[in-house]
Amino acid sequence: MQLQMKKEELKLDEKCIFCKIIKGDIPCAKIFENSKVFAFLDIAPANKGHALIVTKNHYETLLDIPDEELNDLMLGAKKIARAMSSALASEGYNILMNNRKVAGQLVFHAHLHIIPRFTNDRISLNWDHKKYKDKEIDEFKEKIKSFL
Amino acid sequence: MQLQMKKEELKLDEKCIFCKIIKGDIPCAKIFENSKVFAFLDIAPANKGHALIVTKNHYETLLDIPDEELNDLMLGAKKIARAMSSALASEGYNILMNNRKVAGQLVFHAHLHIIPRFTNDRISLNWDHKKYKDKEIDEFKEKIKSFL
Repeated sequence: MQLQMKKEELKLDEKCIFCKIIKGDIPCAKIFENSKVFAFLDIAPANKGHALIVTKNHYETLLDIPDEELNDLMLGAKKIARAMSSALASEGYNILMNNRKVAGQLVFHAHLHIIPRFTNDRISLNWDHKKYKDKEIDEFKEKIKSFL
Repeated sequence: MQLQMKKEELKLDEKCIFCKIIKGDIPCAKIFENSKVFAFLDIAPANKGHALIVTKNHYETLLDIPDEELNDLMLGAKKIARAMSSALASEGYNILMNNRKVAGQLVFHAHLHIIPRFTNDRISLNWDHKKYKDKEIDEFKEKIKSFL
């Protein structure tokens, strides 16, 4: 009889820097961990306290994360946003996930940014508004709906 | 015996523009709806096809959304990101939730932006990196951990 419990195996990617952090091969400022997710501070933060949360299993983008693990990720994000707001007395926070290089994703292990915000912190996550021509919005609506 | 089914009651806010959209009092380019969530195109998009998804119940921020409804919201977001990618042949997408005014929230009914991205679309959701002083990151880590 085998007395030692076998650790549930994680799907890691050998070349992924976040997987190395999760395994403990690269140090990090870890703030939270459970069996499914792992959270640490971004070393190049938008504001100090800026955290990242990831699934322990390696998935590239939102669409690759199984539904259950996505739920684990969001519950973790909520915990962290709450703790961060109390710990840093921040006035708000952004939740951001960049998916694929064109969207600004730099590490291809899906991760959620949790960014504490303060008055006059000079961070701009805004955009110029594009304009739909007459009825063009309905064309876009129908296009997207046809895949739903 | 009452034959007509009573619709499950939603928690709406009379003054909220998204609640009015959900009720049908204000028109929108709706792309998806189920019993828990509602999605439509942003009329002032970062890129054409930019969608918003919200819980039908009115909650102000991420922290106010009950866990189950947050799960519904994310499953909806995933569906839409997948459909959007196919429909618009976008190369990536951002998922963004601004919580509170300081973070750029304009409508105080929690909403997730799903923004399709294309090469050279000139949208910048980046930030200048702040720098931690020696060991300062550990102080932030400990502060946040103390609330987790």
